Amino acid sequence: MRRYDEQLANALVVLSPTAEDGEIEVRISVGNSTVLVAGLHDTKMPQSKPAHCDGSSLKLFSGHTDRFGGITVMSSEEPCLPSQFDQKLEASLTAWKEKKVRGLWFKVALEDASWVPSLAKNEFVFHHAKPGYVMMCRWLPVSELNNIPPFAHTMFGVGAIVVNSAQEILVVKEKYLPDFPHWKLPGGYVEPGENLADAALREVLEETGVKTEFQFLLTFRHMHGAMFGCSDCYFVVSLKPTSEEINMCPREIAACQWMKVDDYLNSPHTIETNKFFVKKYLECQKSGTGMTYESSVHPFVKRRMCIYSISSGQEQSLSEKNNS
Amino acid sequence: MRRYDEQLANALVVLSPTAEDGEIEVRISVGNSTVLVAGLHDTKMPQSKPAHCDGSSLKLFSGHTDRFGGITVMSSEEPCLPSQFDQKLEASLTAWKEKKVRGLWFKVALEDASWVPSLAKNEFVFHHAKPGYVMMCRWLPVSELNNIPPFAHTMFGVGAIVVNSAQEILVVKEKYLPDFPHWKLPGGYVEPGENLADAALREVLEETGVKTEFQFLLTFRHMHGAMFGCSDCYFVVSLKPTSEEINMCPREIAACQWMKVDDYLNSPHTIETNKFFVKKYLECQKSGTGMTYESSVHPFVKRRMCIYSISSGQEQSLSEKNNS
Repeated sequence: MRRYDEQLANALVVLSPTAEDGEIEVRISVGNSTVLVAGLHDTKMPQSKPAHCDGSSLKLFSGHTDRFGGITVMSSEEPCLPSQFDQKLEASLTAWKEKKVRGLWFKVALEDASWVPSLAKNEFVFHHAKPGYVMMCRWLPVSELNNIPPFAHTMFGVGAIVVNSAQEILVVKEKYLPDFPHWKLPGGYVEPGENLADAALREVLEETGVKTEFQFLLTFRHMHGAMFGCSDCYFVVSLKPTSEEINMCPREIAACQWMKVDDYLNSPHTIETNKFFVKKYLECQKSGTGMTYESSVHPFVKRRMCIYSISSGQEQSLSEKNNS
Repeated sequence: MRRYDEQLANALVVLSPTAEDGEIEVRISVGNSTVLVAGLHDTKMPQSKPAHCDGSSLKLFSGHTDRFGGITVMSSEEPCLPSQFDQKLEASLTAWKEKKVRGLWFKVALEDASWVPSLAKNEFVFHHAKPGYVMMCRWLPVSELNNIPPFAHTMFGVGAIVVNSAQEILVVKEKYLPDFPHWKLPGGYVEPGENLADAALREVLEETGVKTEFQFLLTFRHMHGAMFGCSDCYFVVSLKPTSEEINMCPREIAACQWMKVDDYLNSPHTIETNKFFVKKYLECQKSGTGMTYESSVHPFVKRRMCIYSISSGQEQSLSEKNNS
């Protein structure tokens, strides 16, 4: 199932081909100045140093140059009256074609939405959007395959297996699924920039009021065709409760209780995948083998990261370290 | 780090709170008709059955109702002249407020981009975009917290550890990183709708010409602040080569070779995280313990899925099954 334009999907091959770095910081020379271009449109992109600050800036868009030969114009940096936009865009396109620019990007703020129809008329397509802006792009080369990579297309969720010392599992029923009253694992979507373990602890606390500690990542499910046409990655972790009193969130949860693990496995209101997850939990408890993580900073791109890998019972210190 | 509007991020709590299903199919009654609403904006949303097909459809937008009390209007289904759009939107907003509609969604096709400035003026914000459309939304209730969940914010990549019978590892140098000539694992971004193992096999073949079979998922790295301001999840798998001749892709790769595993671990051109990944591979080969997957269809939402979990040496049949 390839829901994106086929050319865009193939394009992944060239831009950051190995995906190992999640993009790299590079200093490049543009005209007379050196500009820090932190990868392509990542969070470190400079907000105040357009690339070509010469006398033509009133007639042409300046933008930021990237290491792939592309240019990004931000409407927040280069205001333009709607009545002058078409003319300035046309002149800029002519200049960019002469300079053999490759990918063109316009980051259009919500308040500059009047730019959008003009860009659409000039062969730009949408790339991605966040509440305050939409990113539009156009691939200029005619003899080279479009290699603009698609935006993120995978939703990230966590579910938690929380079992107390009486071998009872913490389960919930959703408020917005009254016709499907099965008992589910507490959990939810991972917030932007949030770690998986943190998301699990937060969701369990929000939904049930129970406080927990991270133990293991047990298993995950990768599914296609989910919300917004995205794929979906659902990570199941085991958490150790440090409190047991239930304080349910009525805004989102219809019911919440501790249930004997055996009863949960034998209940007609438990779906098969959840039974599988709980069996994996029991295996993990028996063998002491699960996935733990180490937090650090990437040695190369200097970004925060967690690396998850399998640790056996002999390496429990790793799990303990996660909770310190 | 929360880069989205705080309200939007908190909103996750209510919409599909447990994230377990990646959204559910539900049949709901709307006015005189029953409409299949397959979750919220998933790939199964009907393209041809607007919810309120009564005589007012020329003056008001119809849209599709969802199980959360929201409405989605698709420009491709309900054409409207730019000159009439503002009036029709205003009348529709009045009607929707009276009906206590919650989330409002406009899926605006590229060719209807003229709708975008009008929606922005009427308190809509951007939600997400794909090449052919932008989705804009507005939360109508005044006394209830906005619970529209953000779009996907995690890029998905794979890297492959491919070791032949002579204990040599397949490594590449990227074409677009001439200043950082370290040897990397072949790999790349996962395409929309693609499974992790399939992505790894495809990338290794595209970049190096080497054919492989999936063995294990070894470890993964979750990093924040990567391309497009997204987080980044990089899965490292071990693949068994079934051919060894290198046929490098010059479009994306500057160099490719088989290198003794020991030399790779001791090379000054190997970054620390890659050394860690290769050590995990060696541990896995010794213990026979890694993550394998089973493909199936979700018992409830009927979507394709792969579940990854730890299997020990005793369960090699699982890994073999993956390759059948």
